[in-house]
Amino acid sequence: MRRLRYSVAMSLDGYIADAHDAFDWILSDETVDFAGLFARVDTIILGRRSYDVVRAHGAPWKPGTRVFVVSRTLAPESRDGVTIVSSDPAAVASSLRRESGDGEIWLFGGGQLFAALLAGNQVDVVEVTIVPVLLGGGVPMLAHTPDRTPLALTHTHVYPSGMVALYYAVPGAAA
Amino acid sequence: MRRLRYSVAMSLDGYIADAHDAFDWILSDETVDFAGLFARVDTIILGRRSYDVVRAHGAPWKPGTRVFVVSRTLAPESRDGVTIVSSDPAAVASSLRRESGDGEIWLFGGGQLFAALLAGNQVDVVEVTIVPVLLGGGVPMLAHTPDRTPLALTHTHVYPSGMVALYYAVPGAAA
Repeated sequence: MRRLRYSVAMSLDGYIADAHDAFDWILSDETVDFAGLFARVDTIILGRRSYDVVRAHGAPWKPGTRVFVVSRTLAPESRDGVTIVSSDPAAVASSLRRESGDGEIWLFGGGQLFAALLAGNQVDVVEVTIVPVLLGGGVPMLAHTPDRTPLALTHTHVYPSGMVALYYAVPGAAA
Repeated sequence: MRRLRYSVAMSLDGYIADAHDAFDWILSDETVDFAGLFARVDTIILGRRSYDVVRAHGAPWKPGTRVFVVSRTLAPESRDGVTIVSSDPAAVASSLRRESGDGEIWLFGGGQLFAALLAGNQVDVVEVTIVPVLLGGGVPMLAHTPDRTPLALTHTHVYPSGMVALYYAVPGAAA
């Protein structure tokens, strides 16, 4: 079973992008091990809004990484390693998690897709890097959902910049 | 100058109460030093909604603590150590911070009052204890506000229960 990981930078008040989809508030910290982070990942899954941001700024992941974009508005297609899917995102994630191999699946964003995958018990790990800023609004790390989800803290890391990474397992993830 | 401190327990997704004003999701952890926390405090300031919750469940602070409730709907009055104020909360906070003595002022809740006091540069310290749970909705730790507020991490504490306390100074606080 491959692990599906929601790994995001978040303001202390719970936003993963500001009200204008900007993320210039994320601190630059040369001690963040992006290479190690991406080395474990061979598949990206993300929502359409996050995909638009990635397309505008350039994809940070390594060439050859498979990308699945969940969208209700874009036409389903598969081209240049990017697959647009409009069907049940939890079913897509379940299928990816059951593939052979040990590459990880990175839920890159955003809050609505996270809510859908949580509801389907398809998220194994939540990694939040808390940036020392209050944004006052923006894209919530988790869209509104009626369900409470208990988490289990596994470890933490404090960066020199004042960012703090919190790592959680999701006990309710489907086996 | 007395310090004004916003100290709250928060879900990982940024809520200080759930959609029904409940806080049964806050973990019980016998290592939390409530006595030490309250010993430093001689004044509480809180919003009307948080005050209603406190009245329903019993006030956790020590007898004799001065309490200021900021409300646009309750009639201004002062009785039994509780003062209802309807005027500019930043002006109230500024007056309290300038009193002599070194007792701290605890901004007990909630998100709207925090936004008003941040905008008035009247918050010195933000202490958030992150509970390992996703609520999916509720009372935001900070009400919507157009201003970004940079914070400076001072220290962190990991509790045995998996709660993580993050302590920040607010560099923009008025001297």
